[in-house]
Amino acid sequence: MPIHHHHHPYMTIHDFKAHSHYGWDNSFKPIAEVESGQKVTYEITESSGGQFTRHSTAKDVKNMDFGKVNPVAGPVYVKGAEPGDTLEIEMLDFRQLDWGWTAIIPGFGLLADEFDEPAIKTFDLTHPHKTAFLDGIDLFIKPFPGTVGVALPEEGNFSVVPPRKNGGNMDIRHLTRGTKLYLPVWVEGALFSIGDTHAAQGDGEVCGTAVEASMEATIRFKLHKGKSIAEPRYEIPGPPTPEADSRGYYVTTGHGADLVDASRNAIRYMIEHLVDTYKMTDQEAYMLCSVAVDLRISEIVDMPNHLVSAFLPHSIFR
Amino acid sequence: MPIHHHHHPYMTIHDFKAHSHYGWDNSFKPIAEVESGQKVTYEITESSGGQFTRHSTAKDVKNMDFGKVNPVAGPVYVKGAEPGDTLEIEMLDFRQLDWGWTAIIPGFGLLADEFDEPAIKTFDLTHPHKTAFLDGIDLFIKPFPGTVGVALPEEGNFSVVPPRKNGGNMDIRHLTRGTKLYLPVWVEGALFSIGDTHAAQGDGEVCGTAVEASMEATIRFKLHKGKSIAEPRYEIPGPPTPEADSRGYYVTTGHGADLVDASRNAIRYMIEHLVDTYKMTDQEAYMLCSVAVDLRISEIVDMPNHLVSAFLPHSIFR
Repeated sequence: MPIHHHHHPYMTIHDFKAHSHYGWDNSFKPIAEVESGQKVTYEITESSGGQFTRHSTAKDVKNMDFGKVNPVAGPVYVKGAEPGDTLEIEMLDFRQLDWGWTAIIPGFGLLADEFDEPAIKTFDLTHPHKTAFLDGIDLFIKPFPGTVGVALPEEGNFSVVPPRKNGGNMDIRHLTRGTKLYLPVWVEGALFSIGDTHAAQGDGEVCGTAVEASMEATIRFKLHKGKSIAEPRYEIPGPPTPEADSRGYYVTTGHGADLVDASRNAIRYMIEHLVDTYKMTDQEAYMLCSVAVDLRISEIVDMPNHLVSAFLPHSIFR
Repeated sequence: MPIHHHHHPYMTIHDFKAHSHYGWDNSFKPIAEVESGQKVTYEITESSGGQFTRHSTAKDVKNMDFGKVNPVAGPVYVKGAEPGDTLEIEMLDFRQLDWGWTAIIPGFGLLADEFDEPAIKTFDLTHPHKTAFLDGIDLFIKPFPGTVGVALPEEGNFSVVPPRKNGGNMDIRHLTRGTKLYLPVWVEGALFSIGDTHAAQGDGEVCGTAVEASMEATIRFKLHKGKSIAEPRYEIPGPPTPEADSRGYYVTTGHGADLVDASRNAIRYMIEHLVDTYKMTDQEAYMLCSVAVDLRISEIVDMPNHLVSAFLPHSIFR
């Protein structure tokens, strides 16, 4: 029995392979039951589901089996949870394994049309707070789960890729230690699952991957009876990104009638800036945008155009 | 002669009415010439062009003349500027008048369909760093120009409303003191104009207005010859929003295939939260979102859905 009830209210879920699933399906059998107030530690495998190693190459990206991507641990049955309640997940602690990866996966990502060659970059995550992207460029390690959600009320198996009203693959980089995530409960027991742990990411995750890394993640469940929300919410206890903020930002903008097109242009200009200024390849610059650059909506009302800003932190450069 | 060359390289542009224009038109005659390195102070009238006072009511919003909205001071001819150059505008100082306003203007704003009644709220701006939104809620004053740009290469008069490749009505709230804005030069002399000064705003400016306030704005011009950019960029020298960040954020999210729809939902949930928690009206909550809540793109690659986060700073609540 690989689920150990060390002592209430603490539980560890080992053996990720045996306790994970693909997609969202409210007919999945729970792997455990928890109570409001309970802490659970998950041993989570990174989003390739073990297909990549620290020695993987572009060829491994090309041959990746999409059917095995983004497994999530669960579902866990939360006692007393009913449709109309809100399930709080407090992010308590993340301990990443000693390596991670970021890849350009053909057909996936904001600039999929211009980046059609596979690429992968692996990271040494032995230092707790920093990891080198290239010589002279250090990313801040800020771990969080990219995918975290509950079962949908509708029957059937729903792809894990898009986020929905159940949460899921939200890739919200602010779900770091101390943040409380609020999920609407859609079925009895909520049927909570978590996975796709990331060591670093920018708002938007533009190339489609973060610094993907296996982790031990510890969370605390809390049930709010009778409090209904339509979509997930969260609460951040302090400054969201003090490390990245410390030395300010270089910012490119894109405008247009469509926010996705505007974002594409802002990221294209940022890639141009990174390649010109720091002598990296286009692929490296695109990956750096995904793991370190934040997309903000500067303006959404001055019709017919919107404006998006892409924020590159100065502090990642030594 | 209302333009006083006190001493080179300093210039003040008084008499906003005589030195402002509507829309972008590269045939407008320059009101002054400046050199790279020169500082200029502008006395700028808020975006109603003087139609509102601190005693204005919803009726004044209803009767507003749209033809007189968003005048900008200029254009200023920058000596030596040619197409293909970049014009740097360093934001040096902003001194707001002692009052400002925020309005819901029917037909304008992210939720125009559900907020069809005019409303206006005026602010006491005598304190240099804070202004009360409601009892117990203080906004941080962070002044910047909402509209700042250069002439377009195309002939004709272009509405001031949408931002374009010349900058313009970008409403980027980070163009505060210390930020350097980089604008592409499209015509000889650049023909630079500035206006629409804001005392506070959230990323997105969702109801369509910020805390609109008349100001003295001091900027420094710097010409970068032969450096070409396709759209505006900017550089922030330190943490962008340390005051707002200090106690963290309450965040609502919206997901969907369209980022504008996702943003609408995130703002609807935030309005719901503000009305429920702080006992304000829907209109007040919508205006508070516009002047204090930031829209961020959390996820833009997990097709077919995107996810937008709306950030409400805890620190505005006493």
